[in-house]
Amino acid sequence: MQEIIAIVRMNMMNRTKAALDEAGVDAYFAHEAQGRGKGFVNSAVLEGAESGYEEAAAVLGEKGKLYPKRILTVVVPDDLVDDIVEAIIKANQTGKPGDGKIFVTPLGDAVRVRTAEKGKKAIV
Amino acid sequence: MQEIIAIVRMNMMNRTKAALDEAGVDAYFAHEAQGRGKGFVNSAVLEGAESGYEEAAAVLGEKGKLYPKRILTVVVPDDLVDDIVEAIIKANQTGKPGDGKIFVTPLGDAVRVRTAEKGKKAIV
Amino acid sequence: MQEIIAIVRMNMMNRTKAALDEAGVDAYFAHEAQGRGKGFVNSAVLEGAESGYEEAAAVLGEKGKLYPKRILTVVVPDDLVDDIVEAIIKANQTGKPGDGKIFVTPLGDAVRVRTAEKGKKAIV
Repeated sequence: MQEIIAIVRMNMMNRTKAALDEAGVDAYFAHEAQGRGKGFVNSAVLEGAESGYEEAAAVLGEKGKLYPKRILTVVVPDDLVDDIVEAIIKANQTGKPGDGKIFVTPLGDAVRVRTAEKGKKAIV
Repeated sequence: MQEIIAIVRMNMMNRTKAALDEAGVDAYFAHEAQGRGKGFVNSAVLEGAESGYEEAAAVLGEKGKLYPKRILTVVVPDDLVDDIVEAIIKANQTGKPGDGKIFVTPLGDAVRVRTAEKGKKAIV
Repeated sequence: MQEIIAIVRMNMMNRTKAALDEAGVDAYFAHEAQGRGKGFVNSAVLEGAESGYEEAAAVLGEKGKLYPKRILTVVVPDDLVDDIVEAIIKANQTGKPGDGKIFVTPLGDAVRVRTAEKGKKAIV
């Protein structure tokens, strides 16, 4: 099984939840975080700087500003990983900086507390 | 060493902390999240639907509702994993939907910042 | 690539961000959590207890108290891990309990949502 962690825009959560639902995923959790990425800037500011506005260019120079994001965590069987990553990309891709990141990593084991079931049974 | 991530009910944190304490775990951290699981529904609503109440059945049909949960993270030596997972199950198992999930995964390394100790020394 | 998770004091975030910036890291995210470590006590209380104040010693006996912390997550290429861990230690080490922990673990894959780039390209 694999853990998929998706960092998405705050206002993309409903689209992302709908995409997961369509992909057959019905168990996940999410929390709020602050983050930044390499090209992680306000797109209006970026366009302003590209158009030659000095003020926008100065703001772009401010490194380290963090933006609120949603961190979504889903644990899925290996054979569903590619489809679910595709679904999250499709729901979140605008082509502008700040679209987010997805991290995928193997997970050792899972347990459903209610029944003490382990392994794949605990996540499907 | 292994990372144990437990998703538990908000009101189960004190029981869970006491169980960790009894299992000899004295270092962990926790944050609030929203989540849902496969059978992750309000148990009163579930019982209503099972008893034939149409309103309860309709609410059950609402997919994607998220509930507040606590996410607890503990990093422990390999030989303690089974006991600690058992302790978390025991503290949180009510047998009703929403009891939560536990994820276990190998962790590469740990560092105690105060002393720069690495490996098992950093976590015991 | 590896995931570095650093648990730091709330008031150390700006120092840590500056250290990451200097180490060439410009993508990361952070959230607030509550936590405790083995020696994770209020240092003023610890000093009071060491000086023989019974009240301080009594407070030290309270197990399980959690303190607010920042959890910082960075995903970096393998060859940068040691330097970045060093940078985080240097920024956060006061030598007193509560300096925090750093966890390092291999990550399977990363995706930049904007471009759908995968692997190392998605994180540099």
